[in-house]
Amino acid sequence: MILITNDDGIVAPGIRALVEVARKFGEVLVVAPDSPQSGQGHAITLNQPLKLRKVKVFDEVDAYECTGTPVDCVKLAKNVLLKGQKIDLCISGINHGANSALNILYSGTMSAAMEASIEKIDSIGFSLLDFSFEADFTSAKYYAEKIIRSVLEQPMGDCKLLNVNIPACPLEEIKGMKVCRQGNGTWVEDFQEGHDPRGEKYYWLTGKFVSFEDEGDKNNDIWALKNNYVSIVPSGHDLTYYSEIDNFKHLENI
Amino acid sequence: MILITNDDGIVAPGIRALVEVARKFGEVLVVAPDSPQSGQGHAITLNQPLKLRKVKVFDEVDAYECTGTPVDCVKLAKNVLLKGQKIDLCISGINHGANSALNILYSGTMSAAMEASIEKIDSIGFSLLDFSFEADFTSAKYYAEKIIRSVLEQPMGDCKLLNVNIPACPLEEIKGMKVCRQGNGTWVEDFQEGHDPRGEKYYWLTGKFVSFEDEGDKNNDIWALKNNYVSIVPSGHDLTYYSEIDNFKHLENI
Repeated sequence: MILITNDDGIVAPGIRALVEVARKFGEVLVVAPDSPQSGQGHAITLNQPLKLRKVKVFDEVDAYECTGTPVDCVKLAKNVLLKGQKIDLCISGINHGANSALNILYSGTMSAAMEASIEKIDSIGFSLLDFSFEADFTSAKYYAEKIIRSVLEQPMGDCKLLNVNIPACPLEEIKGMKVCRQGNGTWVEDFQEGHDPRGEKYYWLTGKFVSFEDEGDKNNDIWALKNNYVSIVPSGHDLTYYSEIDNFKHLENI
Repeated sequence: MILITNDDGIVAPGIRALVEVARKFGEVLVVAPDSPQSGQGHAITLNQPLKLRKVKVFDEVDAYECTGTPVDCVKLAKNVLLKGQKIDLCISGINHGANSALNILYSGTMSAAMEASIEKIDSIGFSLLDFSFEADFTSAKYYAEKIIRSVLEQPMGDCKLLNVNIPACPLEEIKGMKVCRQGNGTWVEDFQEGHDPRGEKYYWLTGKFVSFEDEGDKNNDIWALKNNYVSIVPSGHDLTYYSEIDNFKHLENI
């Protein structure tokens, strides 16, 4: 059983592309948000109930839309819809827009896959570096199919999560795949300011991503994508800053 | 300047306790959600505008409530309210409930502090292991004050984020502080099922945390808290599973 979700919502073109690929490998279940959930990160819904509604979006594939976040979708799929059933793989996406580098933290697409990985399910998040509705998913589908086939044939070990990003270019321009680390950088934010119809001030988040990586370092996803490689980052969920534990030991004696 | 936020909302007792402590160290600004945001993780608001409203909640302390998530609060504080001003420390909490182990991923309190750390601001998230409104913050305040004083006197190095959890017991029963790693475990979820007034089925998330740690391993926050220590986990935002990169290199050749 392959579980599919995303954060752009169940009617986004990207998830349809992923369903088309996944169907080649066996039974598929789609559980995805009923509305766009970009930027929801690892949010879960604690303060209100969730609903699941069976919908007809894909031919010959069972699909449910969920009122919650991407992580809620995975929790509901595993604990309610597929209770007791083995999930061979959870795939999330194909996201409209990059989830490389630091974006893994903000991404509902990646958090959904991470949630499955926490449950020891092999999981992959796929993202295409094109935000538009009309994005061409040809290259993304080609590489998603290769990676899914490989992971189904050779299941993952201790690491259960891959963050895969695909450059927005024609297949023939993609140079291959790079397995690498999460690139270092940050968003330089700006807020677009305005006034609502009642005259009250509002702020709307905008910004651009700035890399902190040395141009010569090829072992990170920022470099890979800039150079037309598909980036694959094996990822976990342990945020401990191990090398700094000793530097804070003095706090035990204050 | 000390920036204070939380995820339980600006009128929660926990943030009031933290304001009382922080005021001893200088100028304080509070920017916190206008409603409870527990479980919001690293969610940001992309699809709608945000509002900030100046409020009178604390004596002699400037405070704004925000319509967004905890991470939105930090972004707005830094980029709008304190634009160009140096933030010496960002503190988040005191959370009503644990944010140890894996909970760091789901926690709005920790994600707010993490967001500041990404901006290279020294940041600390504080959580008390008591969910109740009537929680006794005496011990939490005592340790928060010690840790804040130390960090202001000796700023952090490369690691800019501490995840601090305080056991829910009287001060005299706390054995001290342990600087350690994030404990390993997961939530075993259940969904409470019911029907809404219109007869439609709903699911409400519930569950309990299960530790995967060996009882004899004392170097993690699950052990520390169980044994009445305050846990301090130096934390980052790089999710790369470094030791597994080589194990996926074969994907470059499929």
